[in-house]
Amino acid sequence: MFAKTISTTAFQKTINRQFIRTMVNAKAIVYSNYGIPSEEIKVHKYTIDSPTADGVVLKTLAHPINPSDINQIEGVYPSRPQLAEILGSEIPIAVAGNEALSKVVEVGPDVKDLKVGDWVIPSFPNYGTWRSHCSGKESDYIKIGSPEGNLTKNAAACLSVNTCTAYEMLTTITKLEPGDWFVQNGGTSSVGRFAVQIAKILGYNSISVVRDRPNIEEVKQELQALGATHVITEEQCGSRQFLKTIKQWIGNGQVKLALNCVGGESSSNLARKLSPDGFFVTYGGMSKRPVTFPTSLFIFKNLTAKGYWITKNNFKDLDQKKHVVKTVLEYFRDQKLVAATAEETEIDWEALGDAEVLKFYQDSLQRSKSRKQLIVSKD
Amino acid sequence: MFAKTISTTAFQKTINRQFIRTMVNAKAIVYSNYGIPSEEIKVHKYTIDSPTADGVVLKTLAHPINPSDINQIEGVYPSRPQLAEILGSEIPIAVAGNEALSKVVEVGPDVKDLKVGDWVIPSFPNYGTWRSHCSGKESDYIKIGSPEGNLTKNAAACLSVNTCTAYEMLTTITKLEPGDWFVQNGGTSSVGRFAVQIAKILGYNSISVVRDRPNIEEVKQELQALGATHVITEEQCGSRQFLKTIKQWIGNGQVKLALNCVGGESSSNLARKLSPDGFFVTYGGMSKRPVTFPTSLFIFKNLTAKGYWITKNNFKDLDQKKHVVKTVLEYFRDQKLVAATAEETEIDWEALGDAEVLKFYQDSLQRSKSRKQLIVSKD
Repeated sequence: MFAKTISTTAFQKTINRQFIRTMVNAKAIVYSNYGIPSEEIKVHKYTIDSPTADGVVLKTLAHPINPSDINQIEGVYPSRPQLAEILGSEIPIAVAGNEALSKVVEVGPDVKDLKVGDWVIPSFPNYGTWRSHCSGKESDYIKIGSPEGNLTKNAAACLSVNTCTAYEMLTTITKLEPGDWFVQNGGTSSVGRFAVQIAKILGYNSISVVRDRPNIEEVKQELQALGATHVITEEQCGSRQFLKTIKQWIGNGQVKLALNCVGGESSSNLARKLSPDGFFVTYGGMSKRPVTFPTSLFIFKNLTAKGYWITKNNFKDLDQKKHVVKTVLEYFRDQKLVAATAEETEIDWEALGDAEVLKFYQDSLQRSKSRKQLIVSKD
Repeated sequence: MFAKTISTTAFQKTINRQFIRTMVNAKAIVYSNYGIPSEEIKVHKYTIDSPTADGVVLKTLAHPINPSDINQIEGVYPSRPQLAEILGSEIPIAVAGNEALSKVVEVGPDVKDLKVGDWVIPSFPNYGTWRSHCSGKESDYIKIGSPEGNLTKNAAACLSVNTCTAYEMLTTITKLEPGDWFVQNGGTSSVGRFAVQIAKILGYNSISVVRDRPNIEEVKQELQALGATHVITEEQCGSRQFLKTIKQWIGNGQVKLALNCVGGESSSNLARKLSPDGFFVTYGGMSKRPVTFPTSLFIFKNLTAKGYWITKNNFKDLDQKKHVVKTVLEYFRDQKLVAATAEETEIDWEALGDAEVLKFYQDSLQRSKSRKQLIVSKD
């Protein structure tokens, strides 16, 4: 055994493995034109060779369907993968999807930090994650380790967009100290839920604004259980009368940060809650209305308004992304953070025919209009 | 002569001067309640003592009537002087006005940098400038020197608000290099006119947006003669078709800065002209509509929106104010900058009775609604 090991060169190892490994037959959801997603997506089949020396082969465990994934297929998202003749396709295509959790199933001989069974996520957006398997270099992925505590497939698969957005907005725009306040609209959104949890961990107080609804008390209790200090309705946020209550809550505290994913009147009302020199960050525009501010907030209260886009940030600084991922992973493992809820549907990539896979994704796209979807691969 | 000089102490000097000087009888426009300015202003008479050792006595040469002066009397401006029992008044009062050019008429023995005849402006806002004379410490004033080139009374009296605002917004918000672009609305405003002149001096290109009007071609030529690179109407700024023309003008250039004093739709259209990572500064809100931005500019173009308020800035950093005043004074002296036009009306403080002075200011307030007023003291 000893003799055999030292006489085998890396080249021979690779050859051996090519002969002994089972060929990976992969399927991906691709598009070759921009348009209505359910009409443009197609199933593309391809085989995956053995990994290169520094490469890995992955099996997808779970991926969400995010609004930005859909906007990419529609051709209206400013960041998207180029259509190219990849994966043996004779026409230019792109694989749909940006986020996924995958499991390492094979590693090349020079791979250092990953081993078979490890959980990983892509290092970059535009990866093309709606597929059964993929392969790439070790450096294309960030190691997630293995499940522990609250680190479920859902938590890991949706980590790099919503969880990291919430963490980054709370920690990189302005310096909050324990006891400081932030306000946000869209309080029931995934980012909003992560924001109140992370704020609680870091010692920040929060006021989350939500739309009024029949079960508003239930929603308030749910968000307060996650860590929200106070939960108010859009009407309360816009009320001069209710401002007295808010001022009592805040006392001598400072409202240093506002997080906006709604726009329109909601953004004006939110901005009015900021203390002098406060920061207002826009990361979404659910109302489809423009972001609006009273002029006096800029001139007399020295408001600074910025945007936050995790995609741009990821491209800029991979080390920062790795740092943030590591931090929030710890939170999940330590059960300080729980994943946002999603409707999980299992897909059996091997058993389903192409038409069935296509129908599965068309149905999932339809369901994603009313509820966040997580597609989980059959083990 | 020599013997007399060395035997006279500073104390004796002061005593001597108190006896030989003519008592200064001063008048000021004051208010003791907030409300409609023409109804609240009153004439207050008082006498000015000899200056303290480090003090000066000033005669007002000219002062503007600014919108912020009016808003202070209305009680709606966030920065205003406290009402107090000053100038021998038995009830709390404040003197109206923030900006003025004054001439030194008497100096205390320890005054170092000012001499009789020097032009000065107040170091701080809320000074109370609508008056015939005033007195204070040398450090309360910034030396302007004496008239030269384009440094007229108008230029000097209105220097510390509009001229300094234009210079500061162009030079302290973000780093513009020669060849870079900025866009602004309110192109015919005083600040707008200074901005294109200062931009030309510094080598920046500009697009000024103005309201359409019958003599639009005349206005364009006038602003271009001042230094504006291009002048367009609000309609052209909002037109998708016209965007092609603007893109041709800018070519590979960067639009790094937008200056907004209008708000509403004008602000959205202006913001759309910014290059990625651009800065949008609000310093006024003439339309009375809120500042409005398309959400995508924050998220995908990394827009930063801020405010600029010269009053706040002055309180923060007197050295910076002195530096800016010195710089723009040079521009006026070198005839690179010309003052904004104003309607000049002369007041004879000595000859007019109290009722006539009051009527003069009430009429001036009325005229200020349609045109900028500069009140010039009779020599």
